[in-house]
Amino acid sequence: MREGQGRGARVMARLEALAAHSATADGLTRLYLTQAHRDAALLVAAWMRAAGLAVRFDAVGNVIGRRDGGRADRPALVLGSHIDTVRHAGKYDGALGVVVAIEAVAALERDLPYAIEIVAFGDEEGVRFPVTLTGSRALAGTLTAAALEVRDAAGISIREALVAFEAPPLGDVAALAYPPDRVLGYCEVHIEQGPVLEAAGLALGVVSAIAGASRHRVTVLGQAGHAGTVPMALRHDPVCAAAEMILAAEAMARATAGLVITTGMIGVAPGAINVIAGQVDFTLDIRHGEDAIRMRATAALRAAMAEIAARRGVELRIDDVYQAKAAPCAKAMVAALSASVARCGMTPMMLPSGAGHDGQAMVDLCPIGMLFVRCRGGISHHPDESVTLADVERAVAVLIDFLEHFPSDGVVQ
Amino acid sequence: MREGQGRGARVMARLEALAAHSATADGLTRLYLTQAHRDAALLVAAWMRAAGLAVRFDAVGNVIGRRDGGRADRPALVLGSHIDTVRHAGKYDGALGVVVAIEAVAALERDLPYAIEIVAFGDEEGVRFPVTLTGSRALAGTLTAAALEVRDAAGISIREALVAFEAPPLGDVAALAYPPDRVLGYCEVHIEQGPVLEAAGLALGVVSAIAGASRHRVTVLGQAGHAGTVPMALRHDPVCAAAEMILAAEAMARATAGLVITTGMIGVAPGAINVIAGQVDFTLDIRHGEDAIRMRATAALRAAMAEIAARRGVELRIDDVYQAKAAPCAKAMVAALSASVARCGMTPMMLPSGAGHDGQAMVDLCPIGMLFVRCRGGISHHPDESVTLADVERAVAVLIDFLEHFPSDGVVQ
Repeated sequence: MREGQGRGARVMARLEALAAHSATADGLTRLYLTQAHRDAALLVAAWMRAAGLAVRFDAVGNVIGRRDGGRADRPALVLGSHIDTVRHAGKYDGALGVVVAIEAVAALERDLPYAIEIVAFGDEEGVRFPVTLTGSRALAGTLTAAALEVRDAAGISIREALVAFEAPPLGDVAALAYPPDRVLGYCEVHIEQGPVLEAAGLALGVVSAIAGASRHRVTVLGQAGHAGTVPMALRHDPVCAAAEMILAAEAMARATAGLVITTGMIGVAPGAINVIAGQVDFTLDIRHGEDAIRMRATAALRAAMAEIAARRGVELRIDDVYQAKAAPCAKAMVAALSASVARCGMTPMMLPSGAGHDGQAMVDLCPIGMLFVRCRGGISHHPDESVTLADVERAVAVLIDFLEHFPSDGVVQ
Repeated sequence: MREGQGRGARVMARLEALAAHSATADGLTRLYLTQAHRDAALLVAAWMRAAGLAVRFDAVGNVIGRRDGGRADRPALVLGSHIDTVRHAGKYDGALGVVVAIEAVAALERDLPYAIEIVAFGDEEGVRFPVTLTGSRALAGTLTAAALEVRDAAGISIREALVAFEAPPLGDVAALAYPPDRVLGYCEVHIEQGPVLEAAGLALGVVSAIAGASRHRVTVLGQAGHAGTVPMALRHDPVCAAAEMILAAEAMARATAGLVITTGMIGVAPGAINVIAGQVDFTLDIRHGEDAIRMRATAALRAAMAEIAARRGVELRIDDVYQAKAAPCAKAMVAALSASVARCGMTPMMLPSGAGHDGQAMVDLCPIGMLFVRCRGGISHHPDESVTLADVERAVAVLIDFLEHFPSDGVVQ
């Protein structure tokens, strides 16, 4: 690790400076195309220029810095992350990856035999508008013009907000797409947002895949009744049926490596202390790095829930409300990042990303890779989000090593 | 069964007439001391007079009719039920018992060697004011003057509402209490409010006890997290812990004859589809006809829940929010009612009452008994509440038989 101390400290100081650009004083709130976003983007652009990058804003609010040693013809390895946040956020989710990339590129003592671009994406969190990954989908060529017409709570469309943001004029959305032959790959540094690295005692982890996810709303219709007068044997209680289904989902996830299933919402109607409910609604969020495993588990869970419903004499309805396919990281990217982690004196560990990232869009354009940084308590999307200076130094060192060893012809997907 | 047809039809017609006295046109709403209650009480008083009873209103809004063949010194067997309702109620809960009692007493061809009183209690449902059983507690001597100071949503106290109701002036509340030696017992006819008789194919049932009940609010504190990033093995999910506790409660109730346990409310916080919850609150309503069994089951359930919480690494808090002891029906009352059911050609069946009734207050004064009438689908507290003419005829016949065989010296508790 070379000169780690100074680099880590500069990254931490820049993250503090970025955090000042927030719509709120209590907790960080920097939504896509707001004034706080524009101020943060200008700051990032200045740091990119100081690191020797040529900087431009694209028409959907991404900040893009390029360093190619004067060889505009060279295809680029794309680094980066996003600089928008959720409401009441922490300082590291997104911003860390952008600032670490700038620091690593600034540290390069020679021009590398390929171009490097750093992108500060504008919309990963999808909080202000009812769409997400707007910036990365534009580069990947999967953004539609229609997606720019969606409106925020104040009735402002993305297209209108881009004008206020002073983004360059938007022509054909398809023209924002990078030609695949101009891109070698996409590599993102991000906080883990989970407790796995902390539990393993490791600073860094190499992502195997961004998990695919399905979300379902489950309705169980039973028979409402008086809590005192209906004997247990005559009940068709949707609360007990739902409880059994929730535990079946948990058991299935526990029995399948890498599978996570969560019930985050339950509603009981009519919802009185002395009334057997007539209806229970609950949610299922199902994620795995491999779509086939997620699909198989989902089918098995549906069958188990149907059996529970039939046995208890309740009616079951499962609505699919969201589906995102997994984005596997390229084997060569995983291998290259793991080799860099090892060369920097650490044990490489692979783990899936349960959270979504810009790589989910970029995978449609090029091979992707991600390096996770341990965060305290697995906390994210909260002002308590925290990383250590030492871990940030390690991330910068690994990214420098990765860039220095990255082959000029890219990696094989 | 003698002249059952005409009696049943008159009871049904009177129940229809009573149902016209409602604060709402859609569903029956007749709250304590409202205009609808007063109108219903006056109608009941008229029917009592027509049945040869001397009628008075007491100072807490009960209508009391007495027939003693001119022997004011005779202790009375008290019949009756309540004429208040919940909001959006049916026509039979409460009113049936009052009208059937009037019909049975009217049918008596000779004066019996004991006095009979019929009471139409004013407040069994406890909907308007945050107290309940006001009328029966007044007679049983357990009503306190302080209870009359509670106020409804409009800020009106019971004491003020009694003035508007034109009840006789209220002096010392304790003076409303019946001396125990003036009362032989209390017998109430009521719809079952549950599905047991219907499932057994029986019109009538003899109540063994009004179940005691405890209600608890349970809080499970786990560790909130990201639904995608926290592996199953690292979770402390209060939703799954609560689900296991709810099923433990169900299993315990199923394994204990007569025990019912209900979870009617669940709240999940923060409550998002993609967030592992940090806190779950749910309720437990536990009832049994024997307090000792309920207490033992509650203790065992608490231990099981504590084990689940410890194993899952979540924090458990159980708050006791309500407790009502069981009101056992007097053995001699149960025997006498069962004998009458048998003499009327039916199979006597004993069952506990899971719902509360005025007998819960009257048991502090005298031996109590209850006769349940089958209701369609076990539905109550809803306009769909329904009983058949034939079952009502059977109830009138059994009550007449019971009165004719009731010993003038009362029953032994």
